[in-house]
Amino acid sequence: MSIDWNTAFAPRMRQAKGSAIRELLKLLDEPGIISFAGGIPDPALFPRAEIAKAAQRILGDPALAAIALQYAPSEGYGPLRRFIAGEMTERGVACGTDNILITSGSQQALDFIGRLFLAPGDAVLVVRPTYLGALQAFSAHQPTYELLPAPGSNRTAESCGTGGRRAKFAYVIADFQNPTGESLSLGERHDLVARAAALGLPLVEDAAYDRLRYDGEALPSLAALECTRAGGIDSGAVLSCGTFSKTIAPALRIGWIAAPRPVIEKLVLIKQASDLHISTLDQMVLHEVAAAIGPDHLPRIRGTYRARRDAMLGALAAFFPAAARWTRPEGGMFIWATLPAQLDAEALLRRSLGEAQVAFVPGATFHADGSGRNTLRLNFSLNPEAVAIEGIRRLGGVLHRALAA
Amino acid sequence: MSIDWNTAFAPRMRQAKGSAIRELLKLLDEPGIISFAGGIPDPALFPRAEIAKAAQRILGDPALAAIALQYAPSEGYGPLRRFIAGEMTERGVACGTDNILITSGSQQALDFIGRLFLAPGDAVLVVRPTYLGALQAFSAHQPTYELLPAPGSNRTAESCGTGGRRAKFAYVIADFQNPTGESLSLGERHDLVARAAALGLPLVEDAAYDRLRYDGEALPSLAALECTRAGGIDSGAVLSCGTFSKTIAPALRIGWIAAPRPVIEKLVLIKQASDLHISTLDQMVLHEVAAAIGPDHLPRIRGTYRARRDAMLGALAAFFPAAARWTRPEGGMFIWATLPAQLDAEALLRRSLGEAQVAFVPGATFHADGSGRNTLRLNFSLNPEAVAIEGIRRLGGVLHRALAA
Repeated sequence: MSIDWNTAFAPRMRQAKGSAIRELLKLLDEPGIISFAGGIPDPALFPRAEIAKAAQRILGDPALAAIALQYAPSEGYGPLRRFIAGEMTERGVACGTDNILITSGSQQALDFIGRLFLAPGDAVLVVRPTYLGALQAFSAHQPTYELLPAPGSNRTAESCGTGGRRAKFAYVIADFQNPTGESLSLGERHDLVARAAALGLPLVEDAAYDRLRYDGEALPSLAALECTRAGGIDSGAVLSCGTFSKTIAPALRIGWIAAPRPVIEKLVLIKQASDLHISTLDQMVLHEVAAAIGPDHLPRIRGTYRARRDAMLGALAAFFPAAARWTRPEGGMFIWATLPAQLDAEALLRRSLGEAQVAFVPGATFHADGSGRNTLRLNFSLNPEAVAIEGIRRLGGVLHRALAA
Repeated sequence: MSIDWNTAFAPRMRQAKGSAIRELLKLLDEPGIISFAGGIPDPALFPRAEIAKAAQRILGDPALAAIALQYAPSEGYGPLRRFIAGEMTERGVACGTDNILITSGSQQALDFIGRLFLAPGDAVLVVRPTYLGALQAFSAHQPTYELLPAPGSNRTAESCGTGGRRAKFAYVIADFQNPTGESLSLGERHDLVARAAALGLPLVEDAAYDRLRYDGEALPSLAALECTRAGGIDSGAVLSCGTFSKTIAPALRIGWIAAPRPVIEKLVLIKQASDLHISTLDQMVLHEVAAAIGPDHLPRIRGTYRARRDAMLGALAAFFPAAARWTRPEGGMFIWATLPAQLDAEALLRRSLGEAQVAFVPGATFHADGSGRNTLRLNFSLNPEAVAIEGIRRLGGVLHRALAA
């Protein structure tokens, strides 16, 4: 008897399939393609020498190496947890080591939060569009997605999903959101924290980009505002997801969740059942690098990305059709463009790859409801200015031709 | 409004809590404790110099480092997948790169398999006792656990759970099982593969210990037998979970699943949503070390653990009560002891920690149904012979006193 795999899988997995977009974007490794599709840092900015030095110091010391290579606690490497707690505290989220779980990038933080909170039919409150990876992580639990109720609404968590579905948390990127690059204003932050508190609803803050501000004044995170409101992280209701992927190196896969202790305790059980712990070698290396890195590291990253953002904004103004609109982010890695309504970004991607060798991500991908077909996401962190300008020039040509057709 | 976290969590998570045993075993780090509790390799056997050299070579080369530190495909590092496919092929499981997914140790392999196959109420077929980490990974999906039907049974996968629950897969460790140390005979392997095929049921083989054989003849894995039966991995129904944790270093967290391509394709989607990918640096380091390691590496591990097993078996014969029984494993890391029925291993652990400073894991932990209260698991891989003998001598004293009471 042979296996019919599709009926062997759990029902929720039967329909899951790789996206056509992802297949198209595999092309971006090909020579000659200018890609604005990834959300990836410039590898030239990785602190390679510091990472190599830390790895050598740890692996060269038998006692340290015995820790770095052996099984370890699921919570994460103690000194790294303490370091992160210290950094969070400095930034207005007073917390202790017990409030920190180390995760495999912030993607695993989102996955674990979905596992902890969501049962089929629960609602997750999101903005539209939002981070695709969050939708992928949460969707394994078959939730519905709803928009946050408007200020002044008298709805409760129990009824703010449509059809009376209970909302379990709100997922928000306050700084330089993926995909739009936009940030919440200070007023919007205060309002959101107050609304979540009134609803009795946990806030999940994805702070992946918060260190990448290029202009304007730094604003307090939702986590900081919630700690102030509630009088501390343990009495509040925020889960803050952070990562070193954008500021040190993504492949080390080190992120974290800062949250009230009862939440961390459950998340540790999930971590243990899911993969025991993160590579201790990577945690120790990252801890050394993050603690020792010079004061010019972040400014160097910010300076590089600021110049690339400005080059792309200039190129958009020069080469995109007058009817297109785009965001002007104060930080992060993305610009979000909205095209005239008759254009379909997925069709344009095929055309752009063929005619102009330029890649981007069509915006519908980031919408929980499949809307946003005339939008697209452009990454500005990877390509040097001249390459970005050339890519936008070519893509602008495709758009002009599509509009003329 | 403050949060009642317990009602905020998904119902399946509300009852989850850390085990009392785990709390007790945190004591094992204290000086003076002799621990047989872990399932951990001797760090003196880690190929530290080779790991350091590989890390330095990769991080010292800007082109390699740019790969090692950047985002990477969810499937895993190509050369490592190819290497594993080659090793599997050599060992009777002919497969290609597309049949391999890299996971964070074999724990993540088990977690992903649970996610892919299980819905609440599905049955998983297991032996009793079995690996605790597998039960933890699968239990997130609220399955029931059933024993494999006896040979000659005419039940089908649809009806081999009690109450007509559908069995989704059988989970088996054929070599040096955790916790008992026992292996399936060749006849039992053939029988199991035939029974699973007759039921139309996937076999999940956990091969974590298969390289650690100290005596006797190597037997074909279930995966190898299933490939022979079905004419290839893609037409068969086996998922083989492997790991480098026991032979290179656990903290690098590198394991894999070898499976038919339709299964790998779904697992890659799960990987992507769960943590994007494994640390590329660790994958590249591990690939270099595994490919370059000398022919004396595995024999050295085997020789060390063989001597430790023999010392523990000798001490058990010398110091344990005559009424106790234990396994004599041909490999792996564990001996399983069965005490007279009136003894409770959890109560004995408390007493042993207090009176003798010796730790072990009570056997009920490994039973899906809570039976096995008079059993215990003893790890023999970590402690040098003299320490193991002293620990068994002290533990034997506790047992003699408990029986005399």
